[in-house]
Amino acid sequence: MMKKIALAAFAFAVAGSALAIEPDKAIKTRQAGYAYIGWNMNKIKDNVEGTYNQAEVIKAANAIAAIANSGMGALYVKGSEKDVGNVKTYVKPEFFSKPQDAAKYAQAFTKEADELARIAAVGTVAEVKAQHGKVGGTCKACHDDFKMKN
Amino acid sequence: MMKKIALAAFAFAVAGSALAIEPDKAIKTRQAGYAYIGWNMNKIKDNVEGTYNQAEVIKAANAIAAIANSGMGALYVKGSEKDVGNVKTYVKPEFFSKPQDAAKYAQAFTKEADELARIAAVGTVAEVKAQHGKVGGTCKACHDDFKMKN
Repeated sequence: MMKKIALAAFAFAVAGSALAIEPDKAIKTRQAGYAYIGWNMNKIKDNVEGTYNQAEVIKAANAIAAIANSGMGALYVKGSEKDVGNVKTYVKPEFFSKPQDAAKYAQAFTKEADELARIAAVGTVAEVKAQHGKVGGTCKACHDDFKMKN
Repeated sequence: MMKKIALAAFAFAVAGSALAIEPDKAIKTRQAGYAYIGWNMNKIKDNVEGTYNQAEVIKAANAIAAIANSGMGALYVKGSEKDVGNVKTYVKPEFFSKPQDAAKYAQAFTKEADELARIAAVGTVAEVKAQHGKVGGTCKACHDDFKMKN
């Protein structure tokens, strides 16, 4: 399902549908999603490097996975590939011209985030740390290719 | 667990801990969480009022519930009760001086969001619509008392 939605959205297929979102709102909303993911990634990092609180890690991992699975692809609507007024986007144009590459990164992220949520509930600290690293790796891979320096 | 964390955080108890977050980052992160919740609430609204896509509603409801359960209370650190430079907060001072009232709203929101995620998976459109309304009611109740007009 993620695959289908991601591919469709990255090809701007949702533009004009009942669920379309204005480009400036789309930019702000995807940035909000990534910011919230980032905070939860940092919390897990603090936990695996410091005092481990499994309940906190589970909640953080669940938030990351749920956001990853929420259909963020729909936030890459036509018009959101460039700044809208003073709403800046840091997505490189290549993200929009190579939708299948972009979708692959999104799928990798979602897969590893789902696994992190699973491991958080049953795994050791070392296992969570390793899987947290894998999720971070999928973030970095996409940022390296598709995110401008900001 | 939500109750404990919410109360502790609203009383600024996390300040200074390993998990403390800078006030400006805390303001931006909580706004990001609410923005992402808002987008997903709107998606569910579009679904119950238009063409219903259960898979999309489930994913949206899961994102809302996971964010609600992610420990947002930790984002109300000391120093974040007022604007930090050009990072504005729209939380009224009363939110911080009445932490138990604030926590009650947070708990009500989390409870109804959990129920929405549960109903999304098994319920009818009418049931989802009714529960979506209940979640929205908990948003509005808190906004009415604790959010500035912006």
